[in-house]
Amino acid sequence: MTFASDNYSGAHPEILAALVAANVGHEISYGRDSYTERLQDVFRAHFGDDARTYPVLNGTGANVVALQAACDRWGAVICADGAHINVDECGAPEKIAGLKLLPVGASHGKLTIDDVRREAWGFDDEHRARPQVVSLTQSTELGTVYTPDEIRAIAGFAHERGMLLHLDGARLANAAAHLGEPFRAFTTDAGVDILSFGGTKNGMILGEAVVVLNPRLNNGMDYLRKSSMQLVSKMRFVSAQFLALLDGDLWLRSATHANTMATRLAEQIRDLPGAEIGHPVQANAVFVRLPAPVLAGLHEQFSFYDWPTGEARWMTSFDTTPEDVDALAKATSQLVDLTGLRTLD
Amino acid sequence: MTFASDNYSGAHPEILAALVAANVGHEISYGRDSYTERLQDVFRAHFGDDARTYPVLNGTGANVVALQAACDRWGAVICADGAHINVDECGAPEKIAGLKLLPVGASHGKLTIDDVRREAWGFDDEHRARPQVVSLTQSTELGTVYTPDEIRAIAGFAHERGMLLHLDGARLANAAAHLGEPFRAFTTDAGVDILSFGGTKNGMILGEAVVVLNPRLNNGMDYLRKSSMQLVSKMRFVSAQFLALLDGDLWLRSATHANTMATRLAEQIRDLPGAEIGHPVQANAVFVRLPAPVLAGLHEQFSFYDWPTGEARWMTSFDTTPEDVDALAKATSQLVDLTGLRTLD
Amino acid sequence: MTFASDNYSGAHPEILAALVAANVGHEISYGRDSYTERLQDVFRAHFGDDARTYPVLNGTGANVVALQAACDRWGAVICADGAHINVDECGAPEKIAGLKLLPVGASHGKLTIDDVRREAWGFDDEHRARPQVVSLTQSTELGTVYTPDEIRAIAGFAHERGMLLHLDGARLANAAAHLGEPFRAFTTDAGVDILSFGGTKNGMILGEAVVVLNPRLNNGMDYLRKSSMQLVSKMRFVSAQFLALLDGDLWLRSATHANTMATRLAEQIRDLPGAEIGHPVQANAVFVRLPAPVLAGLHEQFSFYDWPTGEARWMTSFDTTPEDVDALAKATSQLVDLTGLRTLD
Amino acid sequence: MTFASDNYSGAHPEILAALVAANVGHEISYGRDSYTERLQDVFRAHFGDDARTYPVLNGTGANVVALQAACDRWGAVICADGAHINVDECGAPEKIAGLKLLPVGASHGKLTIDDVRREAWGFDDEHRARPQVVSLTQSTELGTVYTPDEIRAIAGFAHERGMLLHLDGARLANAAAHLGEPFRAFTTDAGVDILSFGGTKNGMILGEAVVVLNPRLNNGMDYLRKSSMQLVSKMRFVSAQFLALLDGDLWLRSATHANTMATRLAEQIRDLPGAEIGHPVQANAVFVRLPAPVLAGLHEQFSFYDWPTGEARWMTSFDTTPEDVDALAKATSQLVDLTGLRTLD
Repeated sequence: MTFASDNYSGAHPEILAALVAANVGHEISYGRDSYTERLQDVFRAHFGDDARTYPVLNGTGANVVALQAACDRWGAVICADGAHINVDECGAPEKIAGLKLLPVGASHGKLTIDDVRREAWGFDDEHRARPQVVSLTQSTELGTVYTPDEIRAIAGFAHERGMLLHLDGARLANAAAHLGEPFRAFTTDAGVDILSFGGTKNGMILGEAVVVLNPRLNNGMDYLRKSSMQLVSKMRFVSAQFLALLDGDLWLRSATHANTMATRLAEQIRDLPGAEIGHPVQANAVFVRLPAPVLAGLHEQFSFYDWPTGEARWMTSFDTTPEDVDALAKATSQLVDLTGLRTLD
Repeated sequence: MTFASDNYSGAHPEILAALVAANVGHEISYGRDSYTERLQDVFRAHFGDDARTYPVLNGTGANVVALQAACDRWGAVICADGAHINVDECGAPEKIAGLKLLPVGASHGKLTIDDVRREAWGFDDEHRARPQVVSLTQSTELGTVYTPDEIRAIAGFAHERGMLLHLDGARLANAAAHLGEPFRAFTTDAGVDILSFGGTKNGMILGEAVVVLNPRLNNGMDYLRKSSMQLVSKMRFVSAQFLALLDGDLWLRSATHANTMATRLAEQIRDLPGAEIGHPVQANAVFVRLPAPVLAGLHEQFSFYDWPTGEARWMTSFDTTPEDVDALAKATSQLVDLTGLRTLD
Repeated sequence: MTFASDNYSGAHPEILAALVAANVGHEISYGRDSYTERLQDVFRAHFGDDARTYPVLNGTGANVVALQAACDRWGAVICADGAHINVDECGAPEKIAGLKLLPVGASHGKLTIDDVRREAWGFDDEHRARPQVVSLTQSTELGTVYTPDEIRAIAGFAHERGMLLHLDGARLANAAAHLGEPFRAFTTDAGVDILSFGGTKNGMILGEAVVVLNPRLNNGMDYLRKSSMQLVSKMRFVSAQFLALLDGDLWLRSATHANTMATRLAEQIRDLPGAEIGHPVQANAVFVRLPAPVLAGLHEQFSFYDWPTGEARWMTSFDTTPEDVDALAKATSQLVDLTGLRTLD
Repeated sequence: MTFASDNYSGAHPEILAALVAANVGHEISYGRDSYTERLQDVFRAHFGDDARTYPVLNGTGANVVALQAACDRWGAVICADGAHINVDECGAPEKIAGLKLLPVGASHGKLTIDDVRREAWGFDDEHRARPQVVSLTQSTELGTVYTPDEIRAIAGFAHERGMLLHLDGARLANAAAHLGEPFRAFTTDAGVDILSFGGTKNGMILGEAVVVLNPRLNNGMDYLRKSSMQLVSKMRFVSAQFLALLDGDLWLRSATHANTMATRLAEQIRDLPGAEIGHPVQANAVFVRLPAPVLAGLHEQFSFYDWPTGEARWMTSFDTTPEDVDALAKATSQLVDLTGLRTLD
């Protein structure tokens, strides 16, 4: 077991079983299969009657398709400087969609209205790519979660200025689990216009979806998905996984478990001397600053990433066990002790 | 069962079993997993020691990534006018890669040197996007197959003019089965520089690969795949399927079966009055022109596509049964008889 | 003097004088100057009250900006296979606008409804870039001219299918001169939606304009022009030239002269043995097939281009003189005689 | 007269005279004319024997063509957050070239090595667009100038990491005039690889040039210029202006004059109570913070822009007169006095 990323995990057995069960006979390809049809209903149950769902292949694909749907050719997207679209997608929003990103600093990965305001200007100046979208990540890349009110406020601010609100929900389930709210409370009902919904990090083998909440944005979506190379031919195998995830409570069980494991980990680390938790632990990530020798020692035993900011990032997943967590916590504690002794030398 | 497309099929059970078996523990994401590592060896066994394999998500993605690797920003691609890249990818080569396609008519979907020559000119004229790649489809969209000599001749023609040869091998296995040759006989050894290798149509749930045979083209491939949104995080689940397909002879068994079914179908149809087979039946497609009432009658019983040229396209797959084939042939025969009687009225 | 291209010419003296006269004091940059303001009125006088004019820098720029205004990101453009956008713009429509071109063969460079119909299908199939524009060139690259009725018929055909009509009018004045009609008779009144209007080939040092006739297409034009790098800062120097060209009858005098020179040339060549005029001579181009020795002999004395089709292309311009024309005709005649004598040996 | 922008000016009379003088007879189009040929020599005299010059149409075009020449499809460009490419080009680097910009804060518009270092990492991580170019503006958008040593140091830093150095030289002449150095001292000899050289702001009607100093970057430049819609047909009219500017000392006279006017203005303003000069006045810009009523009063009499930072930007040009400057300074002084009195009320 590792703490490197929730995409080091395999698939949840229930999801894999559903995928296997879908391997029966012929189905129309490219999304006109019975699984994808039913998936529309399931997403509508979560996001409201106007929701229209477009399964895609990966998270970058979901984001870039969604941003194209929400932006004209001359559009710009205001986002946190640490947003996945800005730092982890190899420039795909720029290269594929031709969009300009307007990144702003964001405390704990969460944009405030004041952050957004820094780039929300110059709407009628042809020399400036026009700000047309605010993009938030929920839960954020730093493991924090926007409240419904925070999202609603930013949506209002955006809409007043003719901008739309996009949510990168690669880990939307973790946010819902933390908030104890249904998805729609902090998406549809909070003014989100379009959504990248993540399946992979919550136990699917692969598969994401663009969910259009503002019906105006459905125009041309089929074309955008195809021309962006995100249309899968045997779509039933993506949709069947989503059905397993979302038609019952698996999405919530898995996300709650992952969150709980992160909290469990943070609780055991928080008070260790020299350890500093970097951000509120609200989803399935723990960012912690540790003395260099502790970090080095941990890397010998566990797999995880060091963040550019210098913190260790520990991700938990649906398959992280309490034993895994306790082992990491214990090793950290021991290394801290050992380091402490050394420090005294 | 349908004759609509080989992507109406599900997955081959052996492939699905391998996917399920890969669901064990954590694996490094984004292609540094043990399955993908082994896959490199398996592809090298098929394509030679210089082959380097980049799993991707779908066929359009494979083609567009491969063409970017082989073209400068100002490149053009000579292809058959019926090539998948020209007619079925919603302009992704243009939109994503910024390339110009130079389509030429091709008899039975196969380009000849004379066809290629029609657009192989103007190599130093900045007003003309520079022809840098010839792209062939093997087996073609019309179910025909290039011989190794035909490919070698076009590769030579292209290379003499500073162009590279790309093969769209969404159905490469069907071509190999028809030719009775190993892959490398008509790819690596015939001068192909880069290849889109298809898994989906030969029994995977999804997954294709760009195979770089000309090592010069590896430069930046990782970046091209990611920025083109074709990098999958839990790559083991794609690679494990490919291993099941290619590490033994499943690829050949499945393709041979599909081809055999197409031949069986063509043989029963060929001599029916009013039926005209449009192209040599060499892979897993039968194109047949039929009287309109016959066509209409068949559509009531079977699912298949009418081609823009007016022919019916019948695709066979790894899971097409002789009974399926015989049922379609019989129905056609009966409708022909019936139509004949009516005609006599 | 040469017959190579109407862009080998310099500027018409009246235009240059206007440019010089505009060099007075400061003017607001980027199109908010007094010359550009007046230009709007002048274009409206030619094209109707709804016309909105966007000066740009060159012909490729005009076309690519116009096509973006008329197409969604997933759009395709039906055009003649010899259209400038297809063969002379280095793939800019594909690279810059991400559009797919759907070229069709066209007799004498002019599309008919039947030609357009060959690609006017598949409007709701996400696998096919959606045909959204028909693009005609007026006068064509082969020196022929559409009648107002021909344009109106194609516009009707296009509009019935939800497509728009674009006119590449790099030589629109030559067409007007040939037809003896005002511009609007075969643009605005014939159903053209958007227009690339050429100044360079009719005596400007440089400068073209996108003229939006269908007001719906003004949305975002300022942004498209700037992001496509076609916005000039000291725009007065482009607009002042256009004013000199269009506010009186200079455009018509120059175009009529160029056309007359082409006709004069064609008349002297037409009946020479071995000479074959390739296309109706309606604008300022003469395409003529000549015996190889004649062609070789002419290249020693005159500058002109051989077309890929094997014909010589002779372009006339506002500054071509009757003496130039007669000299070329005489030399051709002499070479034909000489060749004829040799043939008799 | 205005202080709004150096592109509110017209053309310098000597340049216009040269343009007019070039209007003789036919010249080969698209850059094979005699003026453009001679221009190569003139640029080589300024930038060294390896320099190769590609005239283009405007500054955004020059930058985007240059960046494409220096970047792979997956490249990123480190630049100051206030760089023209980042804030004034409507996202053209992203849209046209598909590049990602990595903007960093820069004191007085000038990047230091420490600034560059903030984004100079992650060179082998496919998830991050690869930093391949550092782009500086000389003189900067804030009227400051890099010393040759500062440029040399950044070039060294960039080259050590496999990056190239681009200079946006829309106002390169103003920098040379300030430094009292020939161009090559702070370009070719300082390690600059590719350059956007500005003509428009120094007295041309329009025209810029991409100057390739690192010969490796010439590959495909003709294609990049054409496909980026920056190739002008009657190029002699751009080149003739450049010859007038650069073959003698007009470039230096004009730039020196503009700089002197800015200094003269700054000297008269600097000590006014309530006035705060924002940046060292080294080129032809004065940024000054003034009390709101002063600013309002000045806007009634003079044309200039307020910067997003709240300062007034006053630009001088080749045609700014001492009387213009003194009038602005005097008006400011009077308004300051008046404001002061009001404040005392």
